Parts: sequence; structure tokens; C-alpha cells
Amino acid sequence: MSFDVLQDKIKEKKNPTVAGLDARVEYVPPSILKKHIDRAGETLEAAAAAVQEFDCGLIDALADVVPAVKPQAAYFEMLGWRGMKALEEITAYAKSKDLFIIADVKRGDIGTTAAAYSEAWLGSIQVGSTSCPVFDADCVTLNGYMGSDAVKPFLEDCTKRDKCAFVLAKTSNPSSKELQDIVAGDRLVYTVMGDLIQRWGQGTEGRYGYQALGAVVGATHPSVLKELRRRLDRTFFLVPGYGAQGGTAADVRSAFDELGRGAIVNASRSIMCAWQKTGKDGSDYQDAARAAAEKMRDEIKRYVTIL
Amino acid sequence: MSFDVLQDKIKEKKNPTVAGLDARVEYVPPSILKKHIDRAGETLEAAAAAVQEFDCGLIDALADVVPAVKPQAAYFEMLGWRGMKALEEITAYAKSKDLFIIADVKRGDIGTTAAAYSEAWLGSIQVGSTSCPVFDADCVTLNGYMGSDAVKPFLEDCTKRDKCAFVLAKTSNPSSKELQDIVAGDRLVYTVMGDLIQRWGQGTEGRYGYQALGAVVGATHPSVLKELRRRLDRTFFLVPGYGAQGGTAADVRSAFDELGRGAIVNASRSIMCAWQKTGKDGSDYQDAARAAAEKMRDEIKRYVTIL
Repeated sequence: MSFDVLQDKIKEKKNPTVAGLDARVEYVPPSILKKHIDRAGETLEAAAAAVQEFDCGLIDALADVVPAVKPQAAYFEMLGWRGMKALEEITAYAKSKDLFIIADVKRGDIGTTAAAYSEAWLGSIQVGSTSCPVFDADCVTLNGYMGSDAVKPFLEDCTKRDKCAFVLAKTSNPSSKELQDIVAGDRLVYTVMGDLIQRWGQGTEGRYGYQALGAVVGATHPSVLKELRRRLDRTFFLVPGYGAQGGTAADVRSAFDELGRGAIVNASRSIMCAWQKTGKDGSDYQDAARAAAEKMRDEIKRYVTIL
Repeated sequence: MSFDVLQDKIKEKKNPTVAGLDARVEYVPPSILKKHIDRAGETLEAAAAAVQEFDCGLIDALADVVPAVKPQAAYFEMLGWRGMKALEEITAYAKSKDLFIIADVKRGDIGTTAAAYSEAWLGSIQVGSTSCPVFDADCVTLNGYMGSDAVKPFLEDCTKRDKCAFVLAKTSNPSSKELQDIVAGDRLVYTVMGDLIQRWGQGTEGRYGYQALGAVVGATHPSVLKELRRRLDRTFFLVPGYGAQGGTAADVRSAFDELGRGAIVNASRSIMCAWQKTGKDGSDYQDAARAAAEKMRDEIKRYVTIL
């Protein structure tokens, strides 16, 4: 239950990292984009097809290196319904390669609206007597500003369907301090949120001792990672901010428990855009992405041994 | 600039309310749903077509009563790409009826991801040398937990395109207190967020004195509405929680300034599902919605005079 499926895949691949699928049109190698524009013009249709070909190519290249992929909904939403159709197909494709799917949606709404989001991303939609799955990811990211009302419907789907979710606690971006670092009694706002996350998840522990509700804690704040790891002992961490944003392997070490479990580190641009640094204009994007993902895995392995 | 377009429409219709378009499949009158299921089976395609017909019918019925509609993204996302296609078409339809569109998306992400969301909802997407608009709403709702990084790209599009955005401050749901009411020095978390919203919006005042960044403050907390109205004198309010959630016309009065400006009150289910109370199985859904919207307008008019 809960994060067991993900932790099992991490152990199997000996790799506690997730590759972000965050492709803006500009990140797609020029030859792929050109092919689709030649066919369909400078349209959202062409852009969505190019992103889909690129993402599926990345999935092929990474499938035996990483345990999970994390599509970022914004980059599909920005292409309208054609982007969302691509996302449905990319998700299904990644699943066919036995990858764990973290849908990075950061949704946060209440009541029946939260239930609608949960049905979309983790559950399925009832039409008459037929149950229709939609994106059917394994895991989502959530924003808990509105409180437990925003989380409960997801937690119910997680429990029913052996899935899980991450809620933002302390994010990796510079302005996260504006609200998250505000002093609230003897805690900070992100600690309050962390405590809420662990409380909301109570009773959903899996085999590894982690609850179905995890927390997002950025790699750019190593001391916070350490503090929250100690404080939230049943909370699995998703750690963004590695690489491009400045987080290092040494920084993320403290996200893991003493058995090297309980966390997964994300990298997006450093893998996806690795082709931009090899001088081959994207013809080697798969090899470049794979090499970057292996490098990241090996860097983290120097600090973390997964038991 | 900023909220001027909306305030002008409110004055013109003499109605400071917005109708939510939050249709779950179950809210669609049975005859409409049946027609589409007969055609396309119990599929997401049928559900999306039914919701689209229903929403466009509501728009027809409400277009000369309300100044604005607020589609809730979750109810379209739950129908996959077909739902998002319906949303694109519904938005264009509402615009053709001269309605102001508040896309209730509550997105909150950072950097290039926030920019992608902003391009999707307020701006347009660059494909080669062509600029492609996507949802092209007039306004969005946002979640500011990640700080100004989550808001700036939207604010830039607002300034460029004469649009605006609301950020969650104090929400109408019961569990909003779990984080939002935490004491933070001499303020509460929602006051901290309110102050940030007004600070982030500085320099974007329009003709009515309101900045391009507004705040969501629930009708279910009248004393908070009063407090924040006084404190955030340049911040336009979106007030959910009227009707079904318990907020009354007397409660929302204090969301408005002394000229009856600076706020818009949302109602969704009470308008959309008014047909469920007339015993006609949905055949009168347009008349029922229109009557409910007029009733709400008239209730609020008893307390608020718009100058």
C-alpha cells in the first residue's frame, strides 16, 4: 500500500530518482519539431505531436534506468486539448514500460471539486453505468493551502487503488520563503504544513512504514530536508531542485532514512535538455538523456545506499 | 487596466455576481445526457458533449443577467482531453456573448512552469513564428503558497493583455482554518497571504483603484471579509461560498467598498442545479438557472448599491 509500489521500483532499479517530462516546445530537438510543423503547420497540433514524440523517445531511453517519470501538467495544458490528449497517451505509454507515473499537477481545491481532480488523475469517471479512467497516474502532487478538504478525496482514491500523493511543504524556489518561512509560534509555516501532511496521512502506512501522503521538500534547502526527515518519520519525500536549481547529491542525502529509503529526487531539464550540450543539434537526445540520468543515479549512489 | 473590465461589466449589468460553470455529469439534465449517451455510448466523449451543451445553454440563459462566468477546470479535466476541448469551446462561446471569463484553475507553480500555465490560460503559445492562444480567459485563480515566483508570470500577462488574477487568501471551506488561521506573529497566515497579494500587485492599479491581483475571500467568514476589506484597500475580492455553503447577502456586504465596488460574489450549484428543485426533470433548466441568478442579484442589491 501507499508508497510501496514506488519504493519497490526504486529498489529494483537501484535508483531513487525520477525524470521530469516538462517539455516546452523549445526543448524538443529541432528536427522533430520541424517534421511536425511541415505536416501540420505552426499549430498547437504540431507542437503537441512533437512533444509527444520527444517524451515517448525519452521514455524509451530512460525506461531501464529510472523507476519513475513525472510529467508536468502545465506543459501539456499549454497546448490545449491536444496537449492533454498527448499527456493521456504518454502516460499510458510510460505505464506500458512499467514506469511509475507521478503527475505533477499541484492541484488544490475542495469538496466535489477535489474529488473531480482525484477522479481525473488517480481514479476514474462514472458515465452512466460505465467507469472510465482518464489520466490514471500512480501518484499526484497537491497543494494543501486549503487544508484537509483539498486532500481527503485523493487519500480515499489512494487507499482504494494503492496510489499515493505528495503535498507541497517546503518548495525549492527562491520565493518559497515569502510564506513558507514565516514564523508561526514555535514553528515555521512549512513545518506546520509538514505536520499537517503527516497527520492527514495517519493510518495509511505501507510495508516500508511510509504513509500514502508524502511531502515535497526542495533540494535547495539541505538543512530543512534534514530537519523535516527527522520530524516527519512516516512521510515519503519528493525532492525537486536537483541540478539546474543548485541541489547536489550531498544536499539530498539527508532526505533518505537510514536504510536509504523514503525519498525520490527529481531532475527535469538536466536530463531532458542534455542534448543541448553535446553539439549534435538533438540527433542524440536519447543517448544524452540516458547518460545524464545514469550520471545523476551514480552521483546519488555515492551518498545513498538503498537497502 | 486590471479589474476595470470586470468592474465596468458589473456596473453595466448592475450585478456583482459570477455564475460558476462546475458541471459534473450528474448535474446535467437527464434528457441531455441520454441524448449524447445514445449517440456515443457511456463514454467520456458523451459526457463532455453533454456538459458542453448544458454549459452553453446556461450561458444563453444567463448572458444578460450576469457579467461573468467562472468555469471550474476540474470538471473539464475529469473528462480528459474531450473535457478540455469542451472548455476551450465553452470559453469562446461565453466570450462571444460578451461575458467576462474567470478560469477557476487555482494553479500554483514556479518559473517556466508558471509561465506555461499563464500562457495557457491568459496568454498565448509560440509555435515557430505563430502565436496561438489556448484558453484565453480574462482572469484566473491562483494559489500563492510557493510565493511570488508562482504569481509573477501571470502578472506580466495581466499587464500586457489587460487581464487579472485572484490569489487564494481565506477560502470558504471548513478546513481552511488548518493552515490559514494559524497565528504568525501579530497576523494569521491568511493575513500574511493577503498582505503579500497586495504587495505583489503594487503598481498595477486601474481606473477604479484596484490592482490586477485580487484575493479570494470566502463568504462564510463575514468578519474576515470586513477585516481584509479594510486592510487590502487596493485588492479586488472574489467571494465564493454564497448560498449552498451558507454565505448570505448580508454576509457578503462587507466585501464591497463604500461605492459598492471591489468585489464579485460567486454562486455555482444554486444556479446550475436550480432545475433539480422545480420537479420538471431538467426541461426548464434554463429558466430555473436564470430565476436563481436574478434572485441572487436582487438579494445582494438589497445590501449593495453599485456606483
